[in-house]
Amino acid sequence: MNVELKLKSNNTILAADEQGIITILDAMPDHGGEGNGSSPMTIMLEAMASCSFLDVLAILRKKRKQIKSMRINVSGIRSDDHPKVFTDVKLHYILESPDASIADLERAIELSQTKYCGASAMFQRSGCNVTWDSEIIS
Amino acid sequence: MNVELKLKSNNTILAADEQGIITILDAMPDHGGEGNGSSPMTIMLEAMASCSFLDVLAILRKKRKQIKSMRINVSGIRSDDHPKVFTDVKLHYILESPDASIADLERAIELSQTKYCGASAMFQRSGCNVTWDSEIIS
Repeated sequence: MNVELKLKSNNTILAADEQGIITILDAMPDHGGEGNGSSPMTIMLEAMASCSFLDVLAILRKKRKQIKSMRINVSGIRSDDHPKVFTDVKLHYILESPDASIADLERAIELSQTKYCGASAMFQRSGCNVTWDSEIIS
Repeated sequence: MNVELKLKSNNTILAADEQGIITILDAMPDHGGEGNGSSPMTIMLEAMASCSFLDVLAILRKKRKQIKSMRINVSGIRSDDHPKVFTDVKLHYILESPDASIADLERAIELSQTKYCGASAMFQRSGCNVTWDSEIIS
């Protein structure tokens, strides 16, 4: 996999993937960011949660469960000292489905977090404590 | 730090940070993606490189070096087996500057990769082999 990053202005970075799709990143507002994009560490956390999000969708769809909506609320705590790695990440999965049970959802999350999700595996292997819970709304 | 992710449609995810800035993620084209955003693992790689990018900019600016342009070309190799973590990442930093030396650039990258960059530290601690080289163009 290849990606190319270039400075657009100040601290705004344009990142292009192999299909030419652009993602915009910027510094935090208190570090010279201008609100053109989220910060790299914010986006790293979003990427990790999205990786698991896609796993859970795929597993539930394979089970022929209906997905009316899905959300994940994520909180991350970073080290006070450099390098400011994530030390704790908590994910709260919320699925709206008329036919999926909480057991279906929990099993899908478990498979993602312990087997499939490369991003979460990297967080966990780096020493980050990754935890999760979930709820079904109908 | 808190982020919220929600499913927009199919495999397209909208991720919102605390300022309400949205980043769009999607599955890979061969996994049901529709090109609305880059994939989570692609964006994780971009986030890591961007984290180091911002460090290098800050260090060079602190040294009062002129930055006419900067780019990073990144290649990442993932495990064949699940979870498909990054096993090797190589970053090639390209700085356009009339007054920064290659030693200035190399020192800035070294500081980022070994001290400041939380994202790269997480990659390295997870077992990923992170390497880099650089060039100055004027």
